[in-house]
Amino acid sequence: MAGTVERDRALGLRDEDFEQRRPLRGQITKREVRALSLYSLGLRSYSIVWDIGAGTGSISVEASLIAREGWVYAVERDLESLALLEGNVGNYGLGNISVIGRAAPEALSDLPDPDSVFVGGSGGELKEILKATAARLRPEGRVVANFATLERTNETYQWFQSQGFRAEITLVNAARSRELPDKSVRLEALNPVFVVTAWRDSQPLEDLLDEQQRN
Amino acid sequence: MAGTVERDRALGLRDEDFEQRRPLRGQITKREVRALSLYSLGLRSYSIVWDIGAGTGSISVEASLIAREGWVYAVERDLESLALLEGNVGNYGLGNISVIGRAAPEALSDLPDPDSVFVGGSGGELKEILKATAARLRPEGRVVANFATLERTNETYQWFQSQGFRAEITLVNAARSRELPDKSVRLEALNPVFVVTAWRDSQPLEDLLDEQQRN
Amino acid sequence: MAGTVERDRALGLRDEDFEQRRPLRGQITKREVRALSLYSLGLRSYSIVWDIGAGTGSISVEASLIAREGWVYAVERDLESLALLEGNVGNYGLGNISVIGRAAPEALSDLPDPDSVFVGGSGGELKEILKATAARLRPEGRVVANFATLERTNETYQWFQSQGFRAEITLVNAARSRELPDKSVRLEALNPVFVVTAWRDSQPLEDLLDEQQRN
Amino acid sequence: MAGTVERDRALGLRDEDFEQRRPLRGQITKREVRALSLYSLGLRSYSIVWDIGAGTGSISVEASLIAREGWVYAVERDLESLALLEGNVGNYGLGNISVIGRAAPEALSDLPDPDSVFVGGSGGELKEILKATAARLRPEGRVVANFATLERTNETYQWFQSQGFRAEITLVNAARSRELPDKSVRLEALNPVFVVTAWRDSQPLEDLLDEQQRN
Repeated sequence: MAGTVERDRALGLRDEDFEQRRPLRGQITKREVRALSLYSLGLRSYSIVWDIGAGTGSISVEASLIAREGWVYAVERDLESLALLEGNVGNYGLGNISVIGRAAPEALSDLPDPDSVFVGGSGGELKEILKATAARLRPEGRVVANFATLERTNETYQWFQSQGFRAEITLVNAARSRELPDKSVRLEALNPVFVVTAWRDSQPLEDLLDEQQRN
Repeated sequence: MAGTVERDRALGLRDEDFEQRRPLRGQITKREVRALSLYSLGLRSYSIVWDIGAGTGSISVEASLIAREGWVYAVERDLESLALLEGNVGNYGLGNISVIGRAAPEALSDLPDPDSVFVGGSGGELKEILKATAARLRPEGRVVANFATLERTNETYQWFQSQGFRAEITLVNAARSRELPDKSVRLEALNPVFVVTAWRDSQPLEDLLDEQQRN
Repeated sequence: MAGTVERDRALGLRDEDFEQRRPLRGQITKREVRALSLYSLGLRSYSIVWDIGAGTGSISVEASLIAREGWVYAVERDLESLALLEGNVGNYGLGNISVIGRAAPEALSDLPDPDSVFVGGSGGELKEILKATAARLRPEGRVVANFATLERTNETYQWFQSQGFRAEITLVNAARSRELPDKSVRLEALNPVFVVTAWRDSQPLEDLLDEQQRN
Repeated sequence: MAGTVERDRALGLRDEDFEQRRPLRGQITKREVRALSLYSLGLRSYSIVWDIGAGTGSISVEASLIAREGWVYAVERDLESLALLEGNVGNYGLGNISVIGRAAPEALSDLPDPDSVFVGGSGGELKEILKATAARLRPEGRVVANFATLERTNETYQWFQSQGFRAEITLVNAARSRELPDKSVRLEALNPVFVVTAWRDSQPLEDLLDEQQRN
């Protein structure tokens, strides 16, 4: 049902539009965090996007609708996820997505340099994936990573800073309404997520000063 | 500077890319909330968008980049904001934005029916604007409104429910990192914002049940 | 187990120290919100406390340990809750708690005027309970109410303001750590709660101005 | 004014009841976080409390009112803060507070073993302070530390875990109402704070299992 209605939407799919692995139900990047992550990727119409640990493909699909003249590489090593990923890409994607059923960082060496990289999962190879990403990111590119843990959030932020990148962490605490039988509305919290965004620090000093003054 | 770099970005402008009214500095819809609001508008490539209380135009501009074959109507009655709005639209928009320098809801009667409506400001005419919006919204359309107050959030939610729409409130608490001199990172909170999204309840009952089971 | 360890603790019981109704598991005022609510009651050693909708008695018990020369009235109309309430009061309370197994506001007419009133539940009689509370509150007293819904939060806040009280709403979004098998720590959110505090506006104007300048 | 009214309150002072250093205005542990921190200290009437980096003394004062037959040691090395600390202790404390104008951890060696330790500031000596605290904490004791940064939060949590303690992190995002001229209420966020609580893991295994089942 959702498919027929939503297939041509360019931004703003619902969590339930994506097929998910049954035991992982609820593991999809939630709509609120997906929105900020997509936004932070700074997509252009011709962007080359890497979606590392693509899972159900929710980021890949929506990125492909914005980077409609670019290309999205959905990298996912988990075989069980792959079938769902391919289903979701087929249902909603624009045709400019390649599903790569291999592990990162190895799988990345064959791909063209990215403008935008989303790291949704790292399979224990976070540092290696960050290295490969930083080495290959195009000059105006952005890397966005989602984390549930303080440790990896801080590690990723500090690593980018140490490599001459600029980085920012956004902590997202969101809650959604649920209507009670008496029509009043209470709020149900989603778990906090840290969104780390990193980009090359290529702005000249004057711009930085100007920017700080404005904040 | 930012302009030259960012002009072709399809999604993900920075708060500082937009010219803002000096005394209102900081009043722009913040990046984190803009991301979720844009996302919730459910934009399609051919969407007709109303941006009511368009302010600096941050929603209009980014909506125009996604609804690139559609059209965005940026409605703003405040004369001082208008100049900035036109500047931002000129700098970043795709050419498919009309700036309407009149008050809503009057200004809305001349516009084509919308697929997506963003209510960023209401100038004291919230109820009338909601009425006009609900009357004109296309069947698959969505309305998104941002509020800082509990009262208007609840009023808007309840009003849509009373009109046979479905509605959802998302409370967004976000915080951004700020690096301290010793390189450690603390978090600075943005004020909580309520994002209300409403859509016509035209799904057949089977779908609703199915959807609920899946949640 | 917990009882033997915790019986003499004056502040800071754990959620699991309180017996709870099985089907209502998780309905106890959470530790983080209980802390702020107790704090906001402005308890003194000799305070008279009303705990309306006392539930499992978590507020009554800890209030009794601080207002050790005062008295706490735990009002709860639900028969099933009463047994638990009496059990918890017996296990942890100081002996200065009376359990009142009747509905508010009727049950309140026999009680001495309160210094501190906690409204944890209202059984559909919120407005009547607020009226009785406001009429009886001692001059320096405070009322604290917890709500999950925007509507009752706003209604309570506005009602106190309309009666010449001052009121404040605190929105509490808390999250607790949970350790993962690899020793990293993610955060699990509690649902947002609104804590409304009200007190008589008896401060002379100079103090108010002074206070505002300081904020 | 506040002083005369509030001097006998046992729990729940206002932020503005405490004298603060002018340039540090706003640096006081905020009321919402103070409430949870005090609560997490698990104070008893006879507790020995260390308040390390006592600042304006807001934790010391309120702890002294609960641990009224115990004693509070307010440790603060900053000379400018000391005068304020002594003023606040004199205005609100119960007479069972000693102000120690020396740096931790050195200052701690002369103090009796603590039941409850609050770490509000560490002056760059966090690890040494944690070590001294863990070595001296009584068997049923608790340590509570407040942090603004992810790094120190995680470091403190992991250190306690590595020493055989149990630890918990609570992330507190609070927002306070501010009334607008039209009587509607918007919410102003406080910056996120991490509250780390640690205690000795002396519970027998059966209790732990039982506790987990109940959660």
